[in-house]
Amino acid sequence: MQLMRIGAVGSERPVVRVDDASYVDVSDLVADFDEAFFADDGVSALRPVVAARTASGQVSAFAGERVGAPIARPHQILCIGLNYRDHAAETGQAVPDEPILFTKSPNTLVGPDDDVRIPRGSTKTDWEVELGIVIGRRSSYLDSVDAARDAIAGYVLVNDVSEREFQIERGGQWSKGKSCETFNPAGPWLLTPDEVDDVGDLGMWLDVNGTRRQTGSTSTMVFDPFFLVHYLSQFLVLEPGDLINTGTPPGVGMGMSPPVYLQPGDVMELGIDGLGRQRQNVLGPR
Amino acid sequence: MQLMRIGAVGSERPVVRVDDASYVDVSDLVADFDEAFFADDGVSALRPVVAARTASGQVSAFAGERVGAPIARPHQILCIGLNYRDHAAETGQAVPDEPILFTKSPNTLVGPDDDVRIPRGSTKTDWEVELGIVIGRRSSYLDSVDAARDAIAGYVLVNDVSEREFQIERGGQWSKGKSCETFNPAGPWLLTPDEVDDVGDLGMWLDVNGTRRQTGSTSTMVFDPFFLVHYLSQFLVLEPGDLINTGTPPGVGMGMSPPVYLQPGDVMELGIDGLGRQRQNVLGPR
Repeated sequence: MQLMRIGAVGSERPVVRVDDASYVDVSDLVADFDEAFFADDGVSALRPVVAARTASGQVSAFAGERVGAPIARPHQILCIGLNYRDHAAETGQAVPDEPILFTKSPNTLVGPDDDVRIPRGSTKTDWEVELGIVIGRRSSYLDSVDAARDAIAGYVLVNDVSEREFQIERGGQWSKGKSCETFNPAGPWLLTPDEVDDVGDLGMWLDVNGTRRQTGSTSTMVFDPFFLVHYLSQFLVLEPGDLINTGTPPGVGMGMSPPVYLQPGDVMELGIDGLGRQRQNVLGPR
Repeated sequence: MQLMRIGAVGSERPVVRVDDASYVDVSDLVADFDEAFFADDGVSALRPVVAARTASGQVSAFAGERVGAPIARPHQILCIGLNYRDHAAETGQAVPDEPILFTKSPNTLVGPDDDVRIPRGSTKTDWEVELGIVIGRRSSYLDSVDAARDAIAGYVLVNDVSEREFQIERGGQWSKGKSCETFNPAGPWLLTPDEVDDVGDLGMWLDVNGTRRQTGSTSTMVFDPFFLVHYLSQFLVLEPGDLINTGTPPGVGMGMSPPVYLQPGDVMELGIDGLGRQRQNVLGPR
Protein backbone atom coordinates (compact mmCIF):
# COMPACT_ATOMS: atom_id res chain seq x y z
CA MET A 1 0.00 0.00 0.00
CA GLN A 2 0.91 3.62 -0.44
CA LEU A 3 -0.17 5.73 2.53
CA MET A 4 -0.62 9.46 2.04
CA ARG A 5 -1.94 12.42 4.00
CA ILE A 6 -3.61 15.20 2.01
CA GLY A 7 -5.10 18.53 2.99
CA ALA A 8 -4.03 21.80 4.56
CA VAL A 9 -1.18 21.98 7.09
CA GLY A 10 -2.41 20.63 10.40
CA SER A 11 -5.61 19.13 9.02
CA GLU A 12 -4.31 16.45 6.68
CA ARG A 13 -6.48 13.37 6.29
CA PRO A 14 -5.21 9.82 5.76
CA VAL A 15 -5.75 8.22 2.36
CA VAL A 16 -4.37 5.27 0.44
CA ARG A 17 -3.01 6.00 -3.02
CA VAL A 18 -4.35 3.86 -5.87
CA ASP A 19 -2.47 5.48 -8.76
CA ASP A 20 -1.38 8.91 -9.99
CA ALA A 21 -4.99 9.99 -10.36
CA SER A 22 -6.92 8.43 -7.50
CA TYR A 23 -7.01 7.36 -3.88
CA VAL A 24 -9.17 5.62 -1.31
CA ASP A 25 -10.20 7.86 1.57
CA VAL A 26 -9.75 6.09 4.92
CA SER A 27 -10.26 9.07 7.19
CA ASP A 28 -13.52 7.51 8.42
CA LEU A 29 -11.50 4.58 9.81
CA VAL A 30 -8.17 6.08 10.79
CA ALA A 31 -7.60 9.26 12.80
CA ASP A 32 -4.11 9.70 11.43
CA PHE A 33 -1.03 7.74 10.38
CA ASP A 34 0.49 8.27 13.79
CA GLU A 35 2.04 6.33 16.65
CA ALA A 36 -1.27 4.77 17.72
CA PHE A 37 -2.08 3.70 14.15
CA PHE A 38 1.22 1.91 13.63
CA ALA A 39 1.23 0.45 17.16
CA ASP A 40 -2.12 -1.19 16.52
CA ASP A 41 -0.86 -2.69 13.24
CA GLY A 42 -3.21 -0.36 11.46
CA VAL A 43 -1.54 -1.17 8.14
CA SER A 44 -2.76 -4.79 8.25
CA ALA A 45 -6.25 -3.72 9.28
CA LEU A 46 -6.48 -1.33 6.34
CA ARG A 47 -5.58 -3.80 3.61
CA PRO A 48 -8.93 -5.61 3.21
CA VAL A 49 -10.89 -2.37 3.51
CA VAL A 50 -8.84 -0.66 0.85
CA ALA A 51 -9.08 -3.71 -1.43
CA ALA A 52 -12.86 -3.76 -1.04
CA ARG A 53 -13.27 -0.05 -1.62
CA THR A 54 -11.02 -0.14 -4.66
CA ALA A 55 -12.92 -3.11 -6.08
CA SER A 56 -16.25 -1.40 -5.60
CA GLY A 57 -15.10 1.87 -7.08
CA GLN A 58 -15.09 3.86 -3.85
CA VAL A 59 -12.15 5.91 -5.02
CA SER A 60 -11.65 9.66 -5.24
CA ALA A 61 -9.70 11.71 -7.75
CA PHE A 62 -6.73 13.75 -6.57
CA ALA A 63 -7.90 17.32 -7.09
CA GLY A 64 -4.76 19.34 -6.56
CA GLU A 65 -4.95 19.26 -2.78
CA ARG A 66 -1.72 19.81 -0.87
CA VAL A 67 0.16 16.62 -0.03
CA GLY A 68 1.44 16.45 3.54
CA ALA A 69 4.12 14.20 4.99
CA PRO A 70 2.71 10.63 4.88
CA ILE A 71 3.06 10.23 8.65
CA ALA A 72 2.06 12.47 11.54
CA ARG A 73 4.79 14.22 13.52
CA PRO A 74 6.76 11.29 14.94
CA HIS A 75 8.05 10.72 18.46
CA GLN A 76 11.58 11.09 17.06
CA ILE A 77 13.52 11.54 13.83
CA LEU A 78 16.79 9.63 13.91
CA CYS A 79 19.41 10.13 11.22
CA ILE A 80 22.42 8.14 10.10
CA GLY A 81 25.53 9.98 8.95
CA LEU A 82 28.05 9.04 6.26
CA ASN A 83 26.19 5.86 5.31
CA TYR A 84 27.09 5.63 1.59
CA ARG A 85 30.47 4.29 0.55
CA ASP A 86 30.70 6.58 -2.47
CA HIS A 87 29.67 9.62 -0.41
CA ALA A 88 32.33 8.83 2.21
CA ALA A 89 34.93 8.51 -0.54
CA GLU A 90 33.78 11.81 -2.08
CA THR A 91 34.30 13.64 1.20
CA GLY A 92 37.64 11.94 1.85
CA GLN A 93 36.36 10.38 5.06
CA ALA A 94 36.68 6.74 6.09
CA VAL A 95 33.63 4.50 6.03
CA PRO A 96 32.43 4.43 9.66
CA ASP A 97 32.92 1.27 11.72
CA GLU A 98 29.38 1.55 13.04
CA PRO A 99 26.44 3.83 12.31
CA ILE A 100 26.76 7.50 13.22
CA LEU A 101 23.54 8.60 14.93
CA PHE A 102 22.20 12.13 15.14
CA THR A 103 18.71 13.59 15.36
CA LYS A 104 16.36 16.18 13.90
CA SER A 105 13.56 17.92 15.78
CA PRO A 106 10.27 16.14 14.92
CA ASN A 107 8.62 19.45 14.03
CA THR A 108 10.92 19.79 11.01
CA LEU A 109 8.62 17.35 9.18
CA VAL A 110 6.77 18.95 6.25
CA GLY A 111 5.12 17.79 3.05
CA PRO A 112 7.07 16.73 -0.05
CA ASP A 113 6.30 19.89 -2.00
CA ASP A 114 6.18 22.40 0.86
CA ASP A 115 8.56 25.34 0.82
CA VAL A 116 11.96 24.96 2.46
CA ARG A 117 13.04 28.06 4.32
CA ILE A 118 16.67 29.15 4.67
CA PRO A 119 17.24 29.95 8.36
CA ARG A 120 18.24 33.41 9.53
CA GLY A 121 22.00 33.88 9.38
CA SER A 122 22.51 30.88 7.11
CA THR A 123 24.96 30.85 4.23
CA LYS A 124 25.32 27.06 3.94
CA THR A 125 21.90 25.44 3.55
CA ASP A 126 22.34 22.13 1.73
CA TRP A 127 20.31 19.23 0.31
CA GLU A 128 20.39 15.47 0.99
CA VAL A 129 18.12 12.96 -0.75
CA GLU A 130 17.59 9.99 1.58
CA LEU A 131 15.65 6.79 2.10
CA GLY A 132 13.51 7.09 5.23
CA ILE A 133 12.37 4.13 7.33
CA VAL A 134 9.12 4.32 9.30
CA ILE A 135 8.95 2.08 12.35
CA GLY A 136 5.90 -0.16 12.68
CA ARG A 137 6.15 -1.45 16.24
CA ARG A 138 7.81 -0.60 19.53
CA SER A 139 11.30 -2.10 19.26
CA SER A 140 13.93 -2.59 21.93
CA TYR A 141 16.84 -5.04 21.81
CA LEU A 142 15.64 -6.76 18.65
CA ASP A 143 17.07 -10.27 18.61
CA SER A 144 18.50 -10.20 15.11
CA VAL A 145 18.91 -8.20 11.94
CA ASP A 146 16.22 -10.41 10.47
CA ALA A 147 13.79 -9.49 13.27
CA ALA A 148 14.15 -5.87 12.20
CA ARG A 149 12.26 -6.67 8.98
CA ASP A 150 9.06 -7.08 10.95
CA ALA A 151 9.60 -3.78 12.75
CA ILE A 152 9.47 -1.68 9.59
CA ALA A 153 6.11 -0.20 8.53
CA GLY A 154 7.43 1.20 5.29
CA TYR A 155 9.76 3.47 3.38
CA VAL A 156 9.54 7.09 2.44
CA LEU A 157 11.49 9.63 0.39
CA VAL A 158 13.03 12.41 2.53
CA ASN A 159 15.16 15.48 1.99
CA ASP A 160 17.45 15.79 5.03
CA VAL A 161 18.00 19.53 4.62
CA SER A 162 21.10 20.66 6.52
CA GLU A 163 22.80 23.91 7.47
CA ARG A 164 26.52 23.10 7.33
CA GLU A 165 27.81 26.01 9.40
CA PHE A 166 25.25 25.34 12.15
CA GLN A 167 26.01 21.60 11.89
CA ILE A 168 29.79 21.69 11.98
CA GLU A 169 31.12 25.13 12.96
CA ARG A 170 28.78 26.16 15.77
CA GLY A 171 29.46 23.91 18.72
CA GLY A 172 30.38 20.35 17.92
CA GLN A 173 27.18 18.30 17.61
CA TRP A 174 25.26 18.01 14.35
CA SER A 175 21.66 18.45 15.56
CA LYS A 176 21.98 22.23 15.58
CA GLY A 177 22.26 22.30 11.79
CA LYS A 178 19.60 19.67 11.17
CA SER A 179 16.58 20.90 13.12
CA CYS A 180 15.66 24.20 11.50
CA GLU A 181 12.03 24.77 10.52
CA THR A 182 10.97 22.96 7.28
CA PHE A 183 14.19 20.90 7.17
CA ASN A 184 12.55 17.48 6.71
CA PRO A 185 10.30 17.23 3.64
CA ALA A 186 8.90 13.68 3.51
CA GLY A 187 6.69 11.81 1.08
CA PRO A 188 4.63 11.90 -1.07
CA TRP A 189 3.80 8.41 0.21
CA LEU A 190 4.85 5.68 2.61
CA LEU A 191 5.39 2.46 0.67
CA THR A 192 4.82 -0.75 2.61
CA PRO A 193 7.67 -3.31 2.41
CA ASP A 194 5.62 -5.91 0.52
CA GLU A 195 5.66 -3.56 -2.47
CA VAL A 196 9.43 -3.08 -2.43
CA ASP A 197 11.31 -5.64 -4.53
CA ASP A 198 14.75 -4.90 -3.12
CA VAL A 199 15.31 -2.00 -0.75
CA GLY A 200 19.02 -2.50 -1.39
CA ASP A 201 18.73 -1.57 -5.04
CA LEU A 202 16.77 1.68 -5.32
CA GLY A 203 18.00 4.47 -7.54
CA MET A 204 17.87 8.00 -6.11
CA TRP A 205 18.52 11.48 -7.48
CA LEU A 206 18.28 15.18 -6.65
CA ASP A 207 18.25 18.21 -8.94
CA VAL A 208 18.70 21.88 -8.04
CA ASN A 209 17.22 24.25 -10.61
CA GLY A 210 17.08 21.39 -13.09
CA THR A 211 20.75 20.45 -12.74
CA ARG A 212 21.42 16.93 -11.49
CA ARG A 213 23.36 17.17 -8.21
CA GLN A 214 22.93 13.76 -6.59
CA THR A 215 22.81 10.39 -8.30
CA GLY A 216 23.02 7.27 -6.22
CA SER A 217 21.62 3.94 -5.24
CA THR A 218 20.85 2.27 -1.96
CA SER A 219 23.20 -0.46 -3.23
CA THR A 220 26.15 1.59 -1.94
CA MET A 221 24.77 1.96 1.58
CA VAL A 222 27.24 0.95 4.28
CA PHE A 223 24.59 -0.25 6.75
CA ASP A 224 21.30 -1.44 5.26
CA PRO A 225 17.86 -0.65 6.75
CA PHE A 226 17.56 -3.96 8.64
CA PHE A 227 21.02 -3.61 10.13
CA LEU A 228 20.20 -0.03 11.18
CA VAL A 229 16.89 -0.83 12.88
CA HIS A 230 18.44 -3.75 14.75
CA TYR A 231 21.46 -1.64 15.70
CA LEU A 232 19.48 1.37 16.94
CA SER A 233 17.21 -0.89 19.00
CA GLN A 234 20.27 -1.90 21.05
CA PHE A 235 20.72 1.70 22.25
CA LEU A 236 17.24 3.18 22.48
CA VAL A 237 13.59 2.27 22.20
CA LEU A 238 12.08 2.82 18.76
CA GLU A 239 8.43 3.85 18.87
CA PRO A 240 5.81 3.12 16.19
CA GLY A 241 5.84 5.91 13.64
CA ASP A 242 9.44 6.93 14.33
CA LEU A 243 11.32 8.06 11.23
CA ILE A 244 14.91 7.07 10.45
CA ASN A 245 16.75 8.98 7.71
CA THR A 246 19.38 6.57 6.45
CA GLY A 247 22.04 8.85 4.94
CA THR A 248 22.73 10.44 1.60
CA PRO A 249 24.61 9.42 -1.56
CA PRO A 250 27.24 11.63 -3.23
CA GLY A 251 26.58 15.10 -4.56
CA VAL A 252 25.71 17.39 -1.66
CA GLY A 253 26.56 21.08 -2.01
CA MET A 254 29.21 20.93 0.72
CA GLY A 255 31.11 18.33 -1.31
CA MET A 256 31.42 20.45 -4.46
CA SER A 257 34.53 22.45 -5.32
CA PRO A 258 33.86 25.20 -4.54
CA PRO A 259 30.85 24.36 -2.34
CA VAL A 260 27.42 25.38 -3.64
CA TYR A 261 24.58 26.17 -1.24
CA LEU A 262 20.90 26.93 -1.59
CA GLN A 263 19.69 30.45 -2.37
CA PRO A 264 16.19 31.94 -2.15
CA GLY A 265 14.35 31.13 -5.38
CA ASP A 266 16.12 27.82 -5.93
CA VAL A 267 14.04 24.72 -6.67
CA MET A 268 14.93 21.26 -5.38
CA GLU A 269 13.50 18.17 -7.06
CA LEU A 270 14.31 14.68 -5.87
CA GLY A 271 13.14 11.09 -6.06
CA ILE A 272 13.73 7.46 -5.19
CA ASP A 273 12.52 4.49 -7.28
CA GLY A 274 9.03 3.53 -6.14
CA LEU A 275 8.79 6.29 -3.55
CA GLY A 276 7.72 9.16 -5.79
CA ARG A 277 9.22 12.60 -6.15
CA GLN A 278 9.35 15.91 -4.31
CA ARG A 279 9.65 19.53 -5.39
CA GLN A 280 10.49 22.33 -2.96
CA ASN A 281 10.80 26.05 -3.52
CA VAL A 282 13.55 27.56 -1.39
CA LEU A 283 12.55 30.70 0.49
CA GLY A 284 14.67 33.30 2.24
CA PRO A 285 14.64 33.71 6.02
CA ARG A 286 11.48 34.78 7.85
CA MET B 1 2.70 26.49 41.54
CA GLN B 2 4.18 23.04 41.71
CA LEU B 3 2.78 20.78 38.99
CA MET B 4 2.97 17.03 39.51
CA ARG B 5 1.68 13.88 37.84
CA ILE B 6 0.90 10.93 40.09
CA GLY B 7 -0.27 7.40 39.42
CA ALA B 8 0.88 4.29 37.60
CA VAL B 9 3.10 4.47 34.52
CA GLY B 10 1.00 5.57 31.57
CA SER B 11 -2.00 6.63 33.64
CA GLU B 12 -0.62 9.50 35.69
CA ARG B 13 -3.06 12.28 36.58
CA PRO B 14 -2.22 15.95 36.90
CA VAL B 15 -2.23 17.52 40.35
CA VAL B 16 -0.89 20.67 41.98
CA ARG B 17 1.28 20.19 45.05
CA VAL B 18 0.30 22.18 48.15
CA ASP B 19 2.98 20.90 50.51
CA ASP B 20 4.78 17.67 51.43
CA ALA B 21 1.54 16.08 52.56
CA SER B 22 -1.17 17.31 50.24
CA TYR B 23 -2.20 18.29 46.73
CA VAL B 24 -5.10 19.67 44.73
CA ASP B 25 -6.40 17.26 42.10
CA VAL B 26 -6.94 19.03 38.77
CA SER B 27 -7.52 15.96 36.63
CA ASP B 28 -11.16 17.03 36.16
CA LEU B 29 -9.91 20.19 34.42
CA VAL B 30 -6.71 19.15 32.70
CA ALA B 31 -6.16 16.07 30.55
CA ASP B 32 -2.42 16.15 31.13
CA PHE B 33 0.51 18.54 31.50
CA ASP B 34 1.32 18.18 27.83
CA GLU B 35 1.91 20.28 24.74
CA ALA B 36 -1.74 21.32 24.44
CA PHE B 37 -1.90 22.33 28.11
CA PHE B 38 1.15 24.57 27.92
CA ALA B 39 0.19 25.97 24.50
CA ASP B 40 -3.16 27.12 25.88
CA ASP B 41 -1.43 28.84 28.84
CA GLY B 42 -2.98 26.23 31.06
CA VAL B 43 -0.76 27.31 33.95
CA SER B 44 -2.46 30.71 34.16
CA ALA B 45 -5.91 29.17 33.90
CA LEU B 46 -5.15 26.80 36.78
CA ARG B 47 -4.05 29.43 39.29
CA PRO B 48 -7.44 30.77 40.44
CA VAL B 49 -8.94 27.27 40.54
CA VAL B 50 -6.13 25.91 42.65
CA ALA B 51 -6.30 28.91 44.97
CA ALA B 52 -10.04 28.44 45.43
CA ARG B 53 -9.79 24.71 46.03
CA THR B 54 -6.96 25.15 48.49
CA ALA B 55 -8.90 27.87 50.36
CA SER B 56 -11.98 25.69 50.58
CA GLY B 57 -10.07 22.66 51.73
CA GLN B 58 -10.52 20.62 48.53
CA VAL B 59 -7.12 19.04 49.00
CA SER B 60 -6.05 15.39 49.04
CA ALA B 61 -3.33 13.68 51.02
CA PHE B 62 -0.44 12.05 49.20
CA ALA B 63 -0.94 8.36 49.89
CA GLY B 64 2.25 6.80 48.65
CA GLU B 65 1.25 6.79 45.01
CA ARG B 66 4.02 6.66 42.43
CA VAL B 67 5.20 10.06 41.24
CA GLY B 68 5.63 10.38 37.48
CA ALA B 69 7.58 12.95 35.53
CA PRO B 70 5.74 16.28 35.98
CA ILE B 71 5.21 16.67 32.25
CA ALA B 72 3.93 14.27 29.61
CA ARG B 73 6.38 12.90 27.05
CA PRO B 74 7.55 16.06 25.28
CA HIS B 75 7.96 16.76 21.58
CA GLN B 76 11.72 16.90 22.16
CA ILE B 77 14.35 16.78 24.88
CA LEU B 78 17.23 19.13 24.12
CA CYS B 79 20.43 19.05 26.17
CA ILE B 80 23.28 21.48 26.63
CA GLY B 81 26.81 20.10 27.03
CA LEU B 82 29.69 21.45 29.13
CA ASN B 83 27.64 24.34 30.52
CA TYR B 84 29.29 24.75 33.95
CA ARG B 85 32.61 26.58 34.25
CA ASP B 86 33.81 24.40 37.12
CA HIS B 87 32.78 21.21 35.27
CA ALA B 88 34.67 22.32 32.16
CA ALA B 89 37.73 23.07 34.29
CA GLU B 90 37.42 19.67 35.99
CA THR B 91 37.48 17.86 32.65
CA GLY B 92 40.33 20.02 31.31
CA GLN B 93 38.18 21.34 28.48
CA ALA B 94 37.73 24.96 27.45
CA VAL B 95 34.48 26.72 28.22
CA PRO B 96 32.52 26.57 24.93
CA ASP B 97 32.08 29.74 22.87
CA GLU B 98 28.42 28.94 22.35
CA PRO B 99 26.06 26.28 23.67
CA ILE B 100 26.70 22.68 22.65
CA LEU B 101 23.38 21.10 21.67
CA PHE B 102 22.55 17.42 21.70
CA THR B 103 19.34 15.47 22.23
CA LYS B 104 17.75 12.58 24.12
CA SER B 105 14.88 10.44 22.87
CA PRO B 106 11.65 11.76 24.46
CA ASN B 107 10.71 8.25 25.63
CA THR B 108 13.64 8.29 28.07
CA LEU B 109 11.45 10.40 30.39
CA VAL B 110 10.54 8.60 33.65
CA GLY B 111 9.48 9.57 37.14
CA PRO B 112 11.89 10.94 39.75
CA ASP B 113 12.01 7.72 41.77
CA ASP B 114 11.64 5.19 38.96
CA ASP B 115 14.37 2.62 38.43
CA VAL B 116 17.24 3.46 36.10
CA ARG B 117 18.32 0.52 34.00
CA ILE B 118 21.90 -0.05 32.86
CA PRO B 119 21.77 -0.81 29.11
CA ARG B 120 22.99 -4.11 27.69
CA GLY B 121 26.70 -4.03 27.00
CA SER B 122 27.25 -0.98 29.16
CA THR B 123 30.26 -0.54 31.45
CA LYS B 124 30.12 3.27 31.70
CA THR B 125 26.69 4.39 32.87
CA ASP B 126 27.03 7.75 34.60
CA TRP B 127 24.97 10.36 36.47
CA GLU B 128 24.34 14.07 35.85
CA VAL B 129 22.18 16.27 38.09
CA GLU B 130 20.74 19.09 35.99
CA LEU B 131 18.30 21.96 35.95
CA GLY B 132 15.58 21.32 33.35
CA ILE B 133 13.62 24.07 31.61
CA VAL B 134 10.07 23.38 30.39
CA ILE B 135 8.92 25.53 27.48
CA GLY B 136 5.59 27.32 27.85
CA ARG B 137 4.87 28.55 24.35
CA ARG B 138 5.87 27.93 20.76
CA SER B 139 9.09 29.89 20.29
CA SER B 140 10.99 30.70 17.12
CA TYR B 141 13.48 33.54 16.64
CA LEU B 142 12.75 35.13 20.01
CA ASP B 143 13.65 38.81 19.79
CA SER B 144 15.79 38.99 22.89
CA VAL B 145 17.16 37.12 25.86
CA ASP B 146 14.57 38.94 27.92
CA ALA B 147 11.75 37.65 25.71
CA ALA B 148 12.86 34.12 26.61
CA ARG B 149 11.62 34.70 30.19
CA ASP B 150 8.03 34.63 28.96
CA ALA B 151 8.63 31.41 27.02
CA ILE B 152 9.48 29.36 30.13
CA ALA B 153 6.68 27.46 31.88
CA GLY B 154 8.87 26.30 34.72
CA TYR B 155 11.85 24.41 36.05
CA VAL B 156 12.37 20.80 36.94
CA LEU B 157 15.06 18.59 38.47
CA VAL B 158 16.47 16.03 36.01
CA ASN B 159 19.08 13.30 36.02
CA ASP B 160 20.67 13.28 32.55
CA VAL B 161 21.84 9.66 32.77
CA SER B 162 24.58 8.96 30.22
CA GLU B 163 26.49 5.97 28.86
CA ARG B 164 29.97 7.30 28.19
CA GLU B 165 31.20 4.58 25.84
CA PHE B 166 28.03 4.84 23.73
CA GLN B 167 28.27 8.64 23.88
CA ILE B 168 31.92 9.09 22.98
CA GLU B 169 33.47 5.86 21.68
CA ARG B 170 30.75 4.47 19.41
CA GLY B 171 30.44 6.73 16.42
CA GLY B 172 30.99 10.39 17.05
CA GLN B 173 27.69 11.99 18.09
CA TRP B 174 26.51 12.06 21.70
CA SER B 175 22.83 11.09 21.32
CA LYS B 176 23.69 7.37 21.16
CA GLY B 177 24.79 7.42 24.80
CA LYS B 178 21.98 9.65 26.02
CA SER B 179 18.82 7.97 24.76
CA CYS B 180 18.74 4.60 26.50
CA GLU B 181 15.53 3.54 28.22
CA THR B 182 14.94 5.23 31.66
CA PHE B 183 17.78 7.72 31.09
CA ASN B 184 15.81 10.87 31.96
CA PRO B 185 14.27 10.86 35.44
CA ALA B 186 12.45 14.18 35.93
CA GLY B 187 10.57 15.74 38.83
CA PRO B 188 9.07 15.40 41.34
CA TRP B 189 7.50 18.71 40.35
CA LEU B 190 7.60 21.51 37.81
CA LEU B 191 8.08 24.82 39.63
CA THR B 192 6.65 27.89 37.93
CA PRO B 193 9.08 30.82 37.53
CA ASP B 194 7.14 33.14 39.88
CA GLU B 195 8.17 30.88 42.75
CA VAL B 196 11.89 30.91 41.88
CA ASP B 197 13.78 33.76 43.56
CA ASP B 198 16.89 33.49 41.42
CA VAL B 199 17.34 30.67 38.93
CA GLY B 200 21.01 31.71 38.74
CA ASP B 201 21.65 30.79 42.38
CA LEU B 202 20.27 27.32 43.02
CA GLY B 203 22.34 24.76 44.88
CA MET B 204 22.41 21.23 43.45
CA TRP B 205 23.82 17.90 44.57
CA LEU B 206 23.94 14.19 43.76
CA ASP B 207 24.83 11.21 45.95
CA VAL B 208 25.61 7.64 44.91
CA ASN B 209 25.07 5.12 47.71
CA GLY B 210 25.08 7.96 50.22
CA THR B 211 28.40 9.41 49.08
CA ARG B 212 28.26 12.95 47.77
CA ARG B 213 29.48 12.96 44.14
CA GLN B 214 28.23 16.24 42.72
CA THR B 215 27.99 19.59 44.47
CA GLY B 216 27.30 22.69 42.46
CA SER B 217 25.25 25.75 41.85
CA THR B 218 23.56 27.26 38.83
CA SER B 219 25.73 30.30 39.60
CA THR B 220 28.59 28.68 37.67
CA MET B 221 26.53 28.07 34.52
CA VAL B 222 28.19 29.37 31.37
CA PHE B 223 24.91 30.12 29.55
CA ASP B 224 21.90 30.87 31.74
CA PRO B 225 18.37 29.58 31.04
CA PHE B 226 17.18 32.77 29.33
CA PHE B 227 20.25 32.89 27.10
CA LEU B 228 19.74 29.22 26.19
CA VAL B 229 16.06 29.53 25.28
CA HIS B 230 16.73 32.61 23.16
CA TYR B 231 19.74 30.93 21.55
CA LEU B 232 17.99 27.66 20.71
CA SER B 233 15.02 29.54 19.24
CA GLN B 234 17.39 30.94 16.58
CA PHE B 235 18.08 27.42 15.26
CA LEU B 236 14.88 25.46 15.76
CA VAL B 237 11.28 25.84 16.86
CA LEU B 238 10.65 25.13 20.53
CA GLU B 239 7.24 23.59 21.20
CA PRO B 240 5.19 24.00 24.41
CA GLY B 241 6.18 21.28 26.85
CA ASP B 242 9.64 20.76 25.36
CA LEU B 243 12.30 19.96 27.96
CA ILE B 244 15.80 21.47 27.94
CA ASN B 245 18.45 19.88 30.18
CA THR B 246 20.92 22.65 30.88
CA GLY B 247 24.13 20.80 31.74
CA THR B 248 25.76 19.38 34.81
CA PRO B 249 28.12 20.72 37.51
CA PRO B 250 31.36 18.92 38.54
CA GLY B 251 31.48 15.42 39.92
CA VAL B 252 30.35 12.99 37.25
CA GLY B 253 31.78 9.47 37.34
CA MET B 254 33.69 9.95 34.09
CA GLY B 255 35.62 12.82 35.69
CA MET B 256 36.90 10.80 38.67
CA SER B 257 40.37 9.27 38.78
CA PRO B 258 39.97 6.44 38.12
CA PRO B 259 36.46 6.82 36.66
CA VAL B 260 33.57 5.35 38.67
CA TYR B 261 30.43 4.11 36.93
CA LEU B 262 27.05 2.85 38.07
CA GLN B 263 26.54 -0.80 39.05
CA PRO B 264 23.33 -2.77 39.56
CA GLY B 265 22.15 -2.18 43.12
CA ASP B 266 23.50 1.36 43.33
CA VAL B 267 21.22 4.13 44.57
CA MET B 268 21.30 7.67 43.17
CA GLU B 269 19.84 10.55 45.16
CA LEU B 270 19.86 14.10 43.87
CA GLY B 271 18.27 17.49 44.38
CA ILE B 272 18.13 21.14 43.45
CA ASP B 273 17.00 23.95 45.79
CA GLY B 274 13.24 24.39 45.48
CA LEU B 275 12.82 21.58 42.95
CA GLY B 276 12.69 18.63 45.34
CA ARG B 277 14.72 15.46 45.28
CA GLN B 278 14.91 12.16 43.42
CA ARG B 279 15.95 8.63 44.36
CA GLN B 280 16.62 5.93 41.75
CA ASN B 281 17.59 2.31 42.17
CA VAL B 282 19.99 1.18 39.48
CA LEU B 283 19.05 -2.11 37.81
CA GLY B 284 21.11 -4.39 35.60
CA PRO B 285 20.31 -4.89 31.90
CA ARG B 286 17.00 -6.41 30.81
